[in-house]
Amino acid sequence: MNRQQLISQIRQKRTFLCVGLDIDINKVPQSLIDEMKNDADDADEWLYATLVEFATRIIDATAPYCVAYKPNLAFYEAYGLDGMAAYESIVEYLNENYPDHFVIADAKRGDIGNTSAMYAKTFFEGDTQVDALTVAPYMGEDSVKPFLGYEDKWVILLALTSNKGSHDFQLTEDAQGERLFEKVLKTSQQWGTKDNMMYVVGATQGRMFEDIRRLVPDHFLLVPGVGAQGGSLEEVCRYGMNKDCGLLVNSSRGIIYASNGSDFAEVAAQKALELRDQMDAELKKAGL
Amino acid sequence: MNRQQLISQIRQKRTFLCVGLDIDINKVPQSLIDEMKNDADDADEWLYATLVEFATRIIDATAPYCVAYKPNLAFYEAYGLDGMAAYESIVEYLNENYPDHFVIADAKRGDIGNTSAMYAKTFFEGDTQVDALTVAPYMGEDSVKPFLGYEDKWVILLALTSNKGSHDFQLTEDAQGERLFEKVLKTSQQWGTKDNMMYVVGATQGRMFEDIRRLVPDHFLLVPGVGAQGGSLEEVCRYGMNKDCGLLVNSSRGIIYASNGSDFAEVAAQKALELRDQMDAELKKAGL
Repeated sequence: MNRQQLISQIRQKRTFLCVGLDIDINKVPQSLIDEMKNDADDADEWLYATLVEFATRIIDATAPYCVAYKPNLAFYEAYGLDGMAAYESIVEYLNENYPDHFVIADAKRGDIGNTSAMYAKTFFEGDTQVDALTVAPYMGEDSVKPFLGYEDKWVILLALTSNKGSHDFQLTEDAQGERLFEKVLKTSQQWGTKDNMMYVVGATQGRMFEDIRRLVPDHFLLVPGVGAQGGSLEEVCRYGMNKDCGLLVNSSRGIIYASNGSDFAEVAAQKALELRDQMDAELKKAGL
Repeated sequence: MNRQQLISQIRQKRTFLCVGLDIDINKVPQSLIDEMKNDADDADEWLYATLVEFATRIIDATAPYCVAYKPNLAFYEAYGLDGMAAYESIVEYLNENYPDHFVIADAKRGDIGNTSAMYAKTFFEGDTQVDALTVAPYMGEDSVKPFLGYEDKWVILLALTSNKGSHDFQLTEDAQGERLFEKVLKTSQQWGTKDNMMYVVGATQGRMFEDIRRLVPDHFLLVPGVGAQGGSLEEVCRYGMNKDCGLLVNSSRGIIYASNGSDFAEVAAQKALELRDQMDAELKKAGL
């Protein structure tokens, strides 16, 4: 998906919500697990089936209220081959049924050039290709560039993350007073453009969005940390929104685990709708 | 595997070689691919079978001359579920047949706390557990700590990598003249110890090993970049070896693709033996 298509989806659907598909089997409603265990042909199948069923029900319920989905690979790798098979099935399901939704593999990859090229092949080619991949910047240019050679595919580079540990290195100032995340924002603009690069900025970073917008006024920002991590949607919009919206705000736990009963999908839809309504209001405030 | 066991393996076997299992199917000898295609029961099986057969023959041939193996996950993920199944089989093969070899999953993971905890579970529990995982430091303390709660398991944190892009951010000096990789070395010593943490330092970094040893005199360093990337073993040892050796020097392409004929395993063994002999000489020079 290209930039114009993404902006057009946001304007049409009045939302810039990204639903995080971080499926922890310990948080999936027991009623669904029981249902899947009864249906499974053999004892090993239920895990794969449950992960896929949980995700597809969440997707079907929330699709009208979001423009993007973001499975985090950690949650699938943790279940071994069953988990990875579920990840692939979920991405295929999205590609087949929701081609207008932007799909982000949250994998935070990055390695030396020939190795990053292998990761790019994994995430940007074939039936399980996604629109965007999160990438860690520590290893520099040749670790990021292999991902930028694909049409309508995106690198989402970590800049200023939502967690406490973001203070350990990302805020370190150089001799000229430039902080590391600012250096990442500046340097990486020599590698990609606003058409193939976004940045991760945590919703917990508040007014730091002002500093970020000075450096990347036009880029999209992927913003985790609203909800469970305590970030404020209003604050993110006040300091982070640009003339094209320029935000994808992610919520995972606050939506997908909002109910642990058999009504989990309906409640997820309600939570997504509430966020959509807040986002609609923010878009209107900004004249969008 | 703990620190004393690793040191004891190095002393006994007179080597600190780590063989990188970065299997690119395009570089696997055609003769092996043909053999596996003939043996495969169905058309889809040959890829999995070839990856596993190539790796196990390399492992059997090189095991006497190395103390560690390092599969890089990128090369397995690129082949989807077949690739991940091959990765798991290779790790199980190592755990069953070579329990005295140190196994490193080179995955460069790192995410917010609850997500890193999922990655830790993946790599440090169950049948496919490894001894160590490479981790990227950009997200700070809570992205690294979940990996440090496992007995005899190791984080290998990226410090100063072997690639050109290492210059983009890792060498950035703060107001006090401290470079980012130095800050990573210093800060991370509050999280782990020489018994559960190592650092990645590229063989291409030459005399920088002196600066690194000032900050981490006792830690093990995982050193990629000898061979294809141009680093010098002698230089690494001169500036980087400590009283316990303290080095794991990795070679991937220079060993596993040394021949593309049916003699690939024998030639890999020869190359590993040559490195072992050079390492033996370096250990002797250091009185080890």
